[in-house]
Amino acid sequence: MEKRRLYMDYAATTPVKPEVLEAMMPYYTTYFGNASSFHQFGREAKEGLDKGRAQVASLINADPREVYFTNGGSESDNWALEGTAFARRNKGNHIITSKIEHHAILHTCEYLEKVHGFEVTYLDVDADGKVDLEQLKRVISDNTILVSVMFANNEIGTIQPIKEITEIAHAHGALMHTDGVQACGNIPVDVKELGVDLMSMSGHKIYGPKGIGALYIKKGVKIHNFMHGGAQERKKRAGTENVPAIVGYGKAAEMAKNNMENHVRELTRLRDKLMYGLQERIPHTRINGHKTDRLPGTANVSFQFIEGEGILLLLDQAGIAGSSGSACTSGSLDPSHVLMALGLPHELAHGSLRLVVGDFTTEEDIDYVLETLPPIIARLRELSPLYQTYIKEHPEENK
Amino acid sequence: MEKRRLYMDYAATTPVKPEVLEAMMPYYTTYFGNASSFHQFGREAKEGLDKGRAQVASLINADPREVYFTNGGSESDNWALEGTAFARRNKGNHIITSKIEHHAILHTCEYLEKVHGFEVTYLDVDADGKVDLEQLKRVISDNTILVSVMFANNEIGTIQPIKEITEIAHAHGALMHTDGVQACGNIPVDVKELGVDLMSMSGHKIYGPKGIGALYIKKGVKIHNFMHGGAQERKKRAGTENVPAIVGYGKAAEMAKNNMENHVRELTRLRDKLMYGLQERIPHTRINGHKTDRLPGTANVSFQFIEGEGILLLLDQAGIAGSSGSACTSGSLDPSHVLMALGLPHELAHGSLRLVVGDFTTEEDIDYVLETLPPIIARLRELSPLYQTYIKEHPEENK
Repeated sequence: MEKRRLYMDYAATTPVKPEVLEAMMPYYTTYFGNASSFHQFGREAKEGLDKGRAQVASLINADPREVYFTNGGSESDNWALEGTAFARRNKGNHIITSKIEHHAILHTCEYLEKVHGFEVTYLDVDADGKVDLEQLKRVISDNTILVSVMFANNEIGTIQPIKEITEIAHAHGALMHTDGVQACGNIPVDVKELGVDLMSMSGHKIYGPKGIGALYIKKGVKIHNFMHGGAQERKKRAGTENVPAIVGYGKAAEMAKNNMENHVRELTRLRDKLMYGLQERIPHTRINGHKTDRLPGTANVSFQFIEGEGILLLLDQAGIAGSSGSACTSGSLDPSHVLMALGLPHELAHGSLRLVVGDFTTEEDIDYVLETLPPIIARLRELSPLYQTYIKEHPEENK
Repeated sequence: MEKRRLYMDYAATTPVKPEVLEAMMPYYTTYFGNASSFHQFGREAKEGLDKGRAQVASLINADPREVYFTNGGSESDNWALEGTAFARRNKGNHIITSKIEHHAILHTCEYLEKVHGFEVTYLDVDADGKVDLEQLKRVISDNTILVSVMFANNEIGTIQPIKEITEIAHAHGALMHTDGVQACGNIPVDVKELGVDLMSMSGHKIYGPKGIGALYIKKGVKIHNFMHGGAQERKKRAGTENVPAIVGYGKAAEMAKNNMENHVRELTRLRDKLMYGLQERIPHTRINGHKTDRLPGTANVSFQFIEGEGILLLLDQAGIAGSSGSACTSGSLDPSHVLMALGLPHELAHGSLRLVVGDFTTEEDIDYVLETLPPIIARLRELSPLYQTYIKEHPEENK
């Protein structure tokens, strides 16, 4: 029997959709020119580039001239932070972000603090992962040059009140950046309505290829370049344009836009069935993240008394691909900084499981997980000294 | 009749070879996992990543642990310079490079000068584009933290004496970086023999995909991270690994290594036929770059009395794709900084044409260019006031 391949890690990366790959293919071997070249091969590539940019801009209701292609979400985050920090140093040296950002934000902030002398405030979040707006109002000052708060969290899926945060930032003359990597293409995003100055995006989270992303920079916002060199991207981002990937990202953005309503409804339905189904079947289960203000596909649950690693190992043996948090930090034994920021005790933060459904997830997939996971948790708890101690104290639960 | 598509701009970018694309394909839709993920999809991707790294390392005789994947040559250059500059600031603040570097080096140097207070010396080159070693010895000091000289020039193809430059750098305690984007995969490169500390590389110049490159960092060399975030690339370069592109780059590197001797011999033969054939057929033609220490595929010639733009336009109409210099600076009306550094007068620098042959170039292609170009030059000269003045003074040339 062929081994089951059940992918539930759509927040880590997605497969490239067949339509996306089909759009990309001619740009590898036929229209392969350098988009900056002055000849027919260059013009063909430039057409693909322009189309891709228009499609990505349309996804977030931006002007195509406000979309700058990068290598991916991490580069966009690095650029937004460093580019703003160095460009606005004469105005102030204070940056505000949150404790649950992706490491592309957190580690860039650390670098700006340690190597370049900036000051960073990390906002707390509540038990659902929502940023503390009152704290933001207290710590923001005229010395604040940038507020960077993620749109939707990659581990727990909680969506932040970006419009309100932007208004607070602007009231103090600070720029507003949001890491929209998980949000853009997954939920409706309109930069004009939000008012943000900068937003990071990525291709491979929305069925586009890896190695491509974008930074939205609102018209008029001044930031330093991050990648120095050639005159690409209107002299703002050097490096040969990755045309096949841009064409694919554009196609993925177009498909995401056209399918948005259905995508949100269907994924939310499947995720809720999964999330509440697990809670119903497995005692001592905590649902992490906000119940309704969350990404449609993202389920994150903590099973008390056990470790996430063991769950993943047994799930993997059953052909189910899940994660304990961000793929970018796997290999680390520390509990998730996101779950710790929610105030979860170590044992709950350690026993977390992220399952993210996507456009290829079926009803049958959900049923299989709901069938497979409860005995895995039961088996791991039997081996857990913590659980054994608990059961001795609560014999009524030992059915 | 179908329009001719004769590509002679292999230094700007190359088509992806069919074998390379074939190797990449499964990683878009089947082995699409995040290489940092802890499950079967992640392990499959990790296998592709490891294989690609070994293949790229083998091309330059490095240990795979010394190869760090980046988004491309420009990122590698930015990283090498900024990462070294900030990591070694306590040792000194002086950087040495050359006047004919790619803009990814020159503009990063400018940024380090203007925004971060480093001092940069730009070495002169001789009429063939070779760096002045005596000048290097005069300007280098204990305050010098880095020497960065490109391996082979992207416009004229001149190859530098990297081993000698490295020895001079090391004698003064400076690190040695070389931009090897045009060299690696095109001529034999052995980092152990050269002794360099850092080297930039790119995939799309050697029949691999765009959007992927590498920075070689010799074991033990300390540099700051450029892209901050996740723990990828042994915590040195954040961002989801671009596995399909890495697999393709690896395959392209393997093919380049296996075909090196034949590639160099055949391209040199075609290029010489083209370069000397043009000089023979067209009076007042200068061959730019060193005659023998040059990249096998790169021809660069200047035709006196006329402008490069006109040549390119008429060549393009005839279905031939050439360039006047770097694709990264097209759109600019300034003459090439490389040709100006050779000491060429403006009118020769303006009338330059780069034709770069590659693995898909045929004998017939060369013949077609040798047939097509002389009447184009003659036609443009007829329209040139400079040429008309010259002919009046030298009536014997007006046959």
